[in-house]
Amino acid sequence: MPEDRPLKAAVLKAAVCGASGYAGAELLRILAGHPGVEVVSVTSEKSRGISPVVLYPHLQKYGRLTYEPLVPEDLARKADFFFMALPHRTSQPAVALIFREGKRIVDLSADFRLKDPSAYEKWYNNPHNHRDVLKKAVYGLPELHRARIKNAGLVANPGCYPTGAILGVYPALKSGIASPEGIIVDSKSGASGAGRQADPRFSFCEVNEGFRAYSVASHRHTPEMEQELSAVAKQTVTINFTPHLLPVNRGILTTIYLKTAKKTTTEKALSVYQKQYANEQFVRVLAPGALPDISAVRGTNRCDIGLVLDERTGTLIVVTAIDNLVKGAAGQAVHNMNIMMGFPEETGLGQLAVFP
Amino acid sequence: MPEDRPLKAAVLKAAVCGASGYAGAELLRILAGHPGVEVVSVTSEKSRGISPVVLYPHLQKYGRLTYEPLVPEDLARKADFFFMALPHRTSQPAVALIFREGKRIVDLSADFRLKDPSAYEKWYNNPHNHRDVLKKAVYGLPELHRARIKNAGLVANPGCYPTGAILGVYPALKSGIASPEGIIVDSKSGASGAGRQADPRFSFCEVNEGFRAYSVASHRHTPEMEQELSAVAKQTVTINFTPHLLPVNRGILTTIYLKTAKKTTTEKALSVYQKQYANEQFVRVLAPGALPDISAVRGTNRCDIGLVLDERTGTLIVVTAIDNLVKGAAGQAVHNMNIMMGFPEETGLGQLAVFP
Amino acid sequence: MPEDRPLKAAVLKAAVCGASGYAGAELLRILAGHPGVEVVSVTSEKSRGISPVVLYPHLQKYGRLTYEPLVPEDLARKADFFFMALPHRTSQPAVALIFREGKRIVDLSADFRLKDPSAYEKWYNNPHNHRDVLKKAVYGLPELHRARIKNAGLVANPGCYPTGAILGVYPALKSGIASPEGIIVDSKSGASGAGRQADPRFSFCEVNEGFRAYSVASHRHTPEMEQELSAVAKQTVTINFTPHLLPVNRGILTTIYLKTAKKTTTEKALSVYQKQYANEQFVRVLAPGALPDISAVRGTNRCDIGLVLDERTGTLIVVTAIDNLVKGAAGQAVHNMNIMMGFPEETGLGQLAVFP
Amino acid sequence: MPEDRPLKAAVLKAAVCGASGYAGAELLRILAGHPGVEVVSVTSEKSRGISPVVLYPHLQKYGRLTYEPLVPEDLARKADFFFMALPHRTSQPAVALIFREGKRIVDLSADFRLKDPSAYEKWYNNPHNHRDVLKKAVYGLPELHRARIKNAGLVANPGCYPTGAILGVYPALKSGIASPEGIIVDSKSGASGAGRQADPRFSFCEVNEGFRAYSVASHRHTPEMEQELSAVAKQTVTINFTPHLLPVNRGILTTIYLKTAKKTTTEKALSVYQKQYANEQFVRVLAPGALPDISAVRGTNRCDIGLVLDERTGTLIVVTAIDNLVKGAAGQAVHNMNIMMGFPEETGLGQLAVFP
Repeated sequence: MPEDRPLKAAVLKAAVCGASGYAGAELLRILAGHPGVEVVSVTSEKSRGISPVVLYPHLQKYGRLTYEPLVPEDLARKADFFFMALPHRTSQPAVALIFREGKRIVDLSADFRLKDPSAYEKWYNNPHNHRDVLKKAVYGLPELHRARIKNAGLVANPGCYPTGAILGVYPALKSGIASPEGIIVDSKSGASGAGRQADPRFSFCEVNEGFRAYSVASHRHTPEMEQELSAVAKQTVTINFTPHLLPVNRGILTTIYLKTAKKTTTEKALSVYQKQYANEQFVRVLAPGALPDISAVRGTNRCDIGLVLDERTGTLIVVTAIDNLVKGAAGQAVHNMNIMMGFPEETGLGQLAVFP
Repeated sequence: MPEDRPLKAAVLKAAVCGASGYAGAELLRILAGHPGVEVVSVTSEKSRGISPVVLYPHLQKYGRLTYEPLVPEDLARKADFFFMALPHRTSQPAVALIFREGKRIVDLSADFRLKDPSAYEKWYNNPHNHRDVLKKAVYGLPELHRARIKNAGLVANPGCYPTGAILGVYPALKSGIASPEGIIVDSKSGASGAGRQADPRFSFCEVNEGFRAYSVASHRHTPEMEQELSAVAKQTVTINFTPHLLPVNRGILTTIYLKTAKKTTTEKALSVYQKQYANEQFVRVLAPGALPDISAVRGTNRCDIGLVLDERTGTLIVVTAIDNLVKGAAGQAVHNMNIMMGFPEETGLGQLAVFP
Repeated sequence: MPEDRPLKAAVLKAAVCGASGYAGAELLRILAGHPGVEVVSVTSEKSRGISPVVLYPHLQKYGRLTYEPLVPEDLARKADFFFMALPHRTSQPAVALIFREGKRIVDLSADFRLKDPSAYEKWYNNPHNHRDVLKKAVYGLPELHRARIKNAGLVANPGCYPTGAILGVYPALKSGIASPEGIIVDSKSGASGAGRQADPRFSFCEVNEGFRAYSVASHRHTPEMEQELSAVAKQTVTINFTPHLLPVNRGILTTIYLKTAKKTTTEKALSVYQKQYANEQFVRVLAPGALPDISAVRGTNRCDIGLVLDERTGTLIVVTAIDNLVKGAAGQAVHNMNIMMGFPEETGLGQLAVFP
Repeated sequence: MPEDRPLKAAVLKAAVCGASGYAGAELLRILAGHPGVEVVSVTSEKSRGISPVVLYPHLQKYGRLTYEPLVPEDLARKADFFFMALPHRTSQPAVALIFREGKRIVDLSADFRLKDPSAYEKWYNNPHNHRDVLKKAVYGLPELHRARIKNAGLVANPGCYPTGAILGVYPALKSGIASPEGIIVDSKSGASGAGRQADPRFSFCEVNEGFRAYSVASHRHTPEMEQELSAVAKQTVTINFTPHLLPVNRGILTTIYLKTAKKTTTEKALSVYQKQYANEQFVRVLAPGALPDISAVRGTNRCDIGLVLDERTGTLIVVTAIDNLVKGAAGQAVHNMNIMMGFPEETGLGQLAVFP
């Protein structure tokens, strides 16, 4: 059992702040396979003093590390790159401090995603106290903002639902085949999206063999979708977004209903999507007739997209599948880091899905 | 183990044709608790000669019965009421023969649901050879057609998806609070909806931890929804319907997007629904803020309904939950039989859900 | 939605104390279908003031009731029969008070199961302060103690694991075909056995797709099995018991390894079991070659038993399946009440399993 | 989507025969991350002519390959190393032909595991026609036979159950702390162990929420365990083996009951196990009090082991967890190849488990 040796002679010293939740643990899993990164510090308030391997026996390569409290100045001395996986509100001041230390950061919280601080304050019911930092943050969806991510000091990693939704709507709006009016996004997420929970409503018995919608017409990921899609459409886009809780560990399937803006066919629409994503390592547009399944992207940073044009109703139905913890969180964060630090984009993210 | 005694001194002698599939087995489960019915015959071609208890160990009360081939004349002598749970196409001639013998029937197949035989022929790619019988069939959704079911000789039991969809749309269209245009029905069904399968795509490994859409813009339950909702709206209604496969055994959750036709609120819309279903034993409209979960209706003939008005987008989002094998098949069939034969409607259907 | 009417003109007024946990909720589910019982009171400390239907939407027939605190004197005026589903330790004084009020009780906790108070104190690390009451308690496994249950004032309802284990070992020990030495009991239980949990270790994500043993060589149900089997064997029996956590909601499968004490065959051993349980409504001994599955007893008060003699090793392998919340808790409690109060034993317990 | 480029400038050209089943697909998944191997050919009779990516959308890196029929002479020209993942019986002649071509092989079938051809013929009910090849085969459990694997031309990859069982028993027998008499192996396997199935008994609905034992006292993996453990114990060892079907995709948990042969403690026994596996990359002996969970090894080539001494009964209870498709099949096959070809043992097998 020689797991506890230093992982490798790595170039980049990284810290994972908030590493006791699922997104943090997933960052550790992925970074263990990244040849250019060494994780030098993990933080957690409530698990301080224990090793990640106690909470997560699968992280056996991290026996040498111990959760420590988040002291920005100390961390800034140890690490050169920061993954922040703290809850929103908590992330805001920590990110600001580390950012001002001149460190590069990917923040997985919601605190720096919304450009408009008043939208943040309305949807998150929390003041934004670091508007100067917010101005410098780049929304970290590489397929839309790669060039700006490259030079960003702070990347706001997208929410899990917006990732699947925006990737599904983007080519249709950009190409003009769909109308920006009346967009409906119906998403279904695995239970890990709720985080590591001590709540009977997320206990095995009350999720297993169940299925329910929640936060209907009020989920906080809505303005994030609207911000990005409004920019694409060059007009204000309002989204109807309904999330549901799936009895699986991982995966988000998003079914999107778009009104066609011009006469088109399934084949033509597919061709628009294929062109848009032709150079993207992590997006696959499926062949006509094929539809994505979350099981084919489990554990990977990939997004699978399928679509069908319903000629009877003039609706383009786009279905996207991602792993909420990877492309929807930790994998996209590593992808962003790869872009920021000049690693080949697939570094550490090449695994195929574990299926079945 | 005294299970094999005659069940009870029952009044109505019933046959279940096609009793080796899940809908047939569910009919047997429910009828075992119905004090007014004795199942005198079960048919199955491929399982002929064995007892239902061999395929379904939980049906221990049926050790005395053996699957027999479907010979209408013989069955007509034995039984007075017929539940037909055959595949479509197969059901058509069998129902016609038994109907002409003067027996009362609930048919669980799709063969007598669509009033317009050309719609049937188009969507099912199969001729309809019994149009005279079709004319006499009543669509068996009690909440819409109770009076006509009462006197029907043949009731066409609704499809599982249409049951959840129609109950969710009906009050909004009838009251005029929603527009009949642009209705979107996004449904998620447990795997038993696919029947008893010998197909790797429905094997445990390929459904578990997965989730996918299928038959997008082409599912055969679409015209059934359109038929019923057009009648309610008194105009042609076109539905966008997308089914998905949930990794659970039972349950359909349907999320419906309706455009509001007049200014309303969540509370007012709930009140419309509550009034519509005030006297329905099997429909429950949830309190404001509550949303249905399939786990609360598992094993029951109930439909739970919740709704939210999204004022930002002018959309009424209605969510319904049913058990696809009960309210979506066998339970509704027994409900229809109760109405036809004058039993109290809840007879045999009073069980609470098995939760968790 | 006329669920809130008084349930029926019932004879026996019953209280369910500790009705906010899964065993309590299951008692309410079952009693809703019992024609001879009316539940007049439900208690819960932490959920006081709300209705069971808030915690458990499937219990729609209980909208009229509200959880109240457990005040024995008040309850004694309202109810004539008591189901106590409190945690151990808490149950002890409450049962004692109500017992002294002259009420008949089925206690689902562990507090009155072990005849030897020192065994209780050792395994539960808790003093037994009501030894006079303990002396009058009858261990409520009807298949072993029906006659004494009939006249008992206090029945200690067996633990879930002991129910499946004792029923599997009993005929082999009683008949002498197996040795009382070296008995191994390997059990696998669904997650509802852990109760309604707010603990990440029982969250969906950490149980689903997992499987683990726990409390190896130290589980508190061990002395209960030993007490009952020692009485059958008329010598001290020591059991090796290993529980495991299954990713299902309900069900316990117990695999038992017994050394044969005399030359026998699978058929002969089956015949011993069949004779032992010939008159039991809730025990089914399967045909040669058949083995039980928890899915065939889900939601029912039944125990299915299969067995195989391994001639190579001289081992009789017995497999039993129960639903931990029914035969392993609430169903057996109602069965005991039926015996105590003179109802036919199957009353309220006749449902077939909900499968699939 | 640039997935279809040649994977890498690889050294070893490998063929995967029988690549349409789960073990074959898992070989492809793992080999896609192995820098020293290029898969040049995949065979499948029933899926000939299509790409693996059609059956398995997660294998997107294999779009360039097409299943071809197994023609040994042709394959021998293309590939230098062979993974054979055919059903037993079918594997025998194919392995023999390729072996005689001078190619090195890991055979994942059961055909070359049992040294004694008469044991093979008895348990598999099939003649062994290639006894000369059988004599040269090495049983591929690296932790026991590393030295011989290194030079083997043909490695018989162990069965999934024997892998978990033998690793759990081996140190106790070798050290003499446990008796070779009366060993009981109670295993629980995920459904992928049954292969890619078109059988209602393995459909989602009939496995999910179920649990059952099967092949009690008759499973074909029994003689494999007995062969290896007899060699360790230097006496004939007879095993009582009971497999069960778990409602999870992957993982085998094996609970082993051993009689202690000398006075010992949990700590001492753990120390024996820790010493035995101190240099093994893929075996982890857990700390006192910890027990393995299949979820911590999912997708990995690892075996986690925990144990407890039950002093009351003189029984050592050992629990092991593996992923049946990795350490129990494809991962162990790659491990064997690494040993045979001189790659570092962890090459291609370094991934951490995907949890949750």
